[in-house]
Amino acid sequence: MELYSYWRSSASFRVRIALALKGLAFDYRPVHLVKNEQLGAAFGALSKTGLVPLLIDGEASIGQSLAIIEYLDEQYPEPSLLPGDAADRARIRSLALDIACEIHPLNNLRVLRYLVKEIGASEEAKNAWYRHWAESGLAAVERRLAGESQTGRFCHGDTPTLADCTLVPQIFNAQRFDCELGSMPTVMRVFANCMALPAFQAAQPSACPDAEA
Amino acid sequence: MELYSYWRSSASFRVRIALALKGLAFDYRPVHLVKNEQLGAAFGALSKTGLVPLLIDGEASIGQSLAIIEYLDEQYPEPSLLPGDAADRARIRSLALDIACEIHPLNNLRVLRYLVKEIGASEEAKNAWYRHWAESGLAAVERRLAGESQTGRFCHGDTPTLADCTLVPQIFNAQRFDCELGSMPTVMRVFANCMALPAFQAAQPSACPDAEA
Repeated sequence: MELYSYWRSSASFRVRIALALKGLAFDYRPVHLVKNEQLGAAFGALSKTGLVPLLIDGEASIGQSLAIIEYLDEQYPEPSLLPGDAADRARIRSLALDIACEIHPLNNLRVLRYLVKEIGASEEAKNAWYRHWAESGLAAVERRLAGESQTGRFCHGDTPTLADCTLVPQIFNAQRFDCELGSMPTVMRVFANCMALPAFQAAQPSACPDAEA
Repeated sequence: MELYSYWRSSASFRVRIALALKGLAFDYRPVHLVKNEQLGAAFGALSKTGLVPLLIDGEASIGQSLAIIEYLDEQYPEPSLLPGDAADRARIRSLALDIACEIHPLNNLRVLRYLVKEIGASEEAKNAWYRHWAESGLAAVERRLAGESQTGRFCHGDTPTLADCTLVPQIFNAQRFDCELGSMPTVMRVFANCMALPAFQAAQPSACPDAEA
């Protein structure tokens, strides 16, 4: 199994967590996003979208982090990252999508670049944009985690799920951009419980082969 | 079953298509996004995120369109919107996410509002932003559909899937904003095949109870 990844890509980080939770070995293939390697010929031969992460597993070549994690959960079911019945699984998926659709797409590198270069946003306006979507999006996740009875040690119950694979990288990003997280005790409790696990430690950006100082 | 929807919400449109393909009856509950009803007390009592669509099915209350469609596919399996083996399902999901994560979040109403009000983008810059993400994102989908052997009458094979439920509303949006779609023959062929089906016709914005002229 091969994972095309960039150490600071939070979508790649989600998949690294899932692989680590399942104890799956893989070859790490770095794609340097800041140097635009995702747009080059080598990666272009593998991916029609030019996006990391990309997982190669035998004949299967799969993009999109959440699709990769669903695939891993179907092919390598233990431990399950989508446990429970259809309603449980819907809650886990909707939490992951509350982050993957409502926060992350607004704050990734190519969007921030477009804001500055094409719209002419100042550095201050760009950072305010980043914090606005991260803080408002995470506040919605906090309301859910604090108010829904299925929340346990982790986002859903007492084992890590797809939702935790998605939440943790978003918190890393939010901390990097100095977002206000003090009003999110449930989110931060779940985050701490995740980071106490070796799988989350092993998957974090600073532990990647391509990590920079 | 109840669906909280707005006629022009493309995420709601995805779910309406899935419900129609499965022949599931539901009560339509309109939430007027332009009037900010999603932020009001009535909808706030149902949703902690303030987002449509929201599906209520017995005890289950589910947000996020893709999580809703996965739920419907698990609870009401026929016809399957995620057919095939794990690799097939991964391809279908990744196509849906190529739209739901890479295009749609950048172009929804609250983001366009923020661009204008907070960043000071002109109407022209806002429309260019919209077209940029729609056209570049759909071009990636075109490369996939044109180049991958699993594409059939629809995005994946010869029956509509989750990927088609996600593609069609995005084309409606792109047409509304005068995006360039002439260089996307495969996308537009699939779109036409979808719109020839009664389920897609029944789910479209103009067929909604809350449709405006």
